[in-house]
Amino acid sequence: MAAPLALTLGEPAGIGPDIALAAWAARQALDLPPFLLIGDPDLLAARARTLGLDVPVEPATPETAAATCPRALPVLATGHPATAQPGRPDASSAPAAIAAIETAVALVRAGRAAAVVTNPIAKAVMYQAGFAFPGHTEFLAELAAGDGSSSTGGGDSRPPVPIADFREISDFENENPRVSPARCASIPGRRKRLRPVMMIWSELVAVVPVTIHIPLAEVPRRLSRELIVETATITARDLAARFGIARPRLAVCGLNPHAGEGGTLGREDEDIVRPAVAALRGLGLDVRGPLPADTLFHAAARATYDAALGMYHDQVLAPAKALAFDTAVNVTLGLPFVRTSPDHGTAFELAGTGRASPSSLIAALRLAHRLSSPT
Amino acid sequence: MAAPLALTLGEPAGIGPDIALAAWAARQALDLPPFLLIGDPDLLAARARTLGLDVPVEPATPETAAATCPRALPVLATGHPATAQPGRPDASSAPAAIAAIETAVALVRAGRAAAVVTNPIAKAVMYQAGFAFPGHTEFLAELAAGDGSSSTGGGDSRPPVPIADFREISDFENENPRVSPARCASIPGRRKRLRPVMMIWSELVAVVPVTIHIPLAEVPRRLSRELIVETATITARDLAARFGIARPRLAVCGLNPHAGEGGTLGREDEDIVRPAVAALRGLGLDVRGPLPADTLFHAAARATYDAALGMYHDQVLAPAKALAFDTAVNVTLGLPFVRTSPDHGTAFELAGTGRASPSSLIAALRLAHRLSSPT
Repeated sequence: MAAPLALTLGEPAGIGPDIALAAWAARQALDLPPFLLIGDPDLLAARARTLGLDVPVEPATPETAAATCPRALPVLATGHPATAQPGRPDASSAPAAIAAIETAVALVRAGRAAAVVTNPIAKAVMYQAGFAFPGHTEFLAELAAGDGSSSTGGGDSRPPVPIADFREISDFENENPRVSPARCASIPGRRKRLRPVMMIWSELVAVVPVTIHIPLAEVPRRLSRELIVETATITARDLAARFGIARPRLAVCGLNPHAGEGGTLGREDEDIVRPAVAALRGLGLDVRGPLPADTLFHAAARATYDAALGMYHDQVLAPAKALAFDTAVNVTLGLPFVRTSPDHGTAFELAGTGRASPSSLIAALRLAHRLSSPT
Repeated sequence: MAAPLALTLGEPAGIGPDIALAAWAARQALDLPPFLLIGDPDLLAARARTLGLDVPVEPATPETAAATCPRALPVLATGHPATAQPGRPDASSAPAAIAAIETAVALVRAGRAAAVVTNPIAKAVMYQAGFAFPGHTEFLAELAAGDGSSSTGGGDSRPPVPIADFREISDFENENPRVSPARCASIPGRRKRLRPVMMIWSELVAVVPVTIHIPLAEVPRRLSRELIVETATITARDLAARFGIARPRLAVCGLNPHAGEGGTLGREDEDIVRPAVAALRGLGLDVRGPLPADTLFHAAARATYDAALGMYHDQVLAPAKALAFDTAVNVTLGLPFVRTSPDHGTAFELAGTGRASPSSLIAALRLAHRLSSPT
């Protein structure tokens, strides 16, 4: 039987448990692929009661998940119970969330899970607990690059899956000012570095911000030809390898309004973006730019590319979410396995209320299944 | 009979003539309000022949336009013939475009036109010809603030309309680096200054960028509490006075991703945007912010405000045009008259081909009519 998707618990006090339960309840109607929830079964059972959902929770392994999924939500315990109430993270939150991520990665690296789907974590809660990574994605990259020795994945003795798509990067991109690169670099066991690339994907449009969670004022300084080339290369490679697009078409936004109008509204588009596009074309890739961002997202324009690269967060996430707010999925490219995530946060105020929509998680499960299925 | 809309020719070599002819051809089917084209009748007749359109062109005045419109495109000549061929602006382009704008403003100020609708001009062509304004909007503001003496409006002897909504500003906002403020300030006849505010409006969403055509790197430095307060105040006032929204609701984007996440992703949202919003609320306005731009444009979010203010161009124009590319209208707020414009450029490559869509101009005519009609 095919390996299931490994779905992490996320922040226990957030809406992760709610939407996981809701997605399981909708599995038949929506023909969702089998998934194994990695997290505390007691917390999930309690959340189901709070929500008034009739969702049986059953212990499972990757190997039994697919058979369990039709009758109950299959859950693999990590050994880190979560005691947080909805909306109120506690001291158990971060260890439970971390253990779930570590286990999921160990399973996918061992070939026992098809892909990793992560529920949202709360950065502030994680930082308080000493979490040394800027975010979810960097932690996944670290785990993917390591030997998995910190995993709590349950005595797996199989060899890790080959890491074909793997590459090192010279500069660890730490985008969170609260976590110093030095602190990251001092983490024991750091061996290699991956450059994860965030894509927001929906049926309507796929976008990749070249810089992400940094102040807007830093964007012009941080932008470089190398960063654009690296991001576009990883994007094109994963669109080919994962999405099955033989020759991906990339559209690259200019940094400035109207893509700088030939340099009169800022030089970066001529001095950085255009040379990066030329270099990418020199590599044989189908890349256009710099293009004005404000005319790149109507239907006719979207039909001309497979992914749009923005120079910063809001430039491409604002239009992408305007078009597909409920069904947008966060996909991490550049990892040696498939990882998707719903495109929203922990939404503490909605946890336990029954008002959290599982639609983005459902889209994330579907996409993870599609990307990890043999074509 | 009600005063017609004054529609300027725009750049003669651009698609302005094409879409004006197409809009007239669709006037009956779409029940468009009467409009008077201000420009060279011979150029329009020639363009109609090029396009194979059966559009009779007839000389008219503001007073005869409504009666003419059902049988022919009513055109008021400015005395500046335009000889440019489609796609190839020539020395007649700028004088013809400028004369049309001046005449249209003179007519609306005299109460002989209900509103001004402008076809696109080509900045580069205008600058080469010595045009001393950063763009269309600033020229309109100058004409609105002046006494109209430079007008070629045809011997109008009526008194100008009262200018109730009028205000001076202390700092002329010159956003085009090719035109120095000193050069603007030296224009003879400068008397008062208006602060025009650009709104991109559609049935789906209305957005206002607080800074517009400046390099992205300059946005953080140019942003100020005063600029946000002034822009929001003008927006709220015109939404009330022109759009008939009794208590306009404004949503203000943060500058940084996630609106700065409490200051950790940039200080400006806490130090500039939040105090500006507080000041606006202190003025009794319904204003919220700073809000993350990427979650502000899905349908449920859009239902919570009448206009969204962005801190820079692409932040709000990219999502607005993603949602309503063909029907978005550029509206200038803060002028003593109604001015709308299609939300696109001269598109030289489409002029004379029949492939230019009149949909944005049609939306601009409709909105100008709505905003200038007594409620």
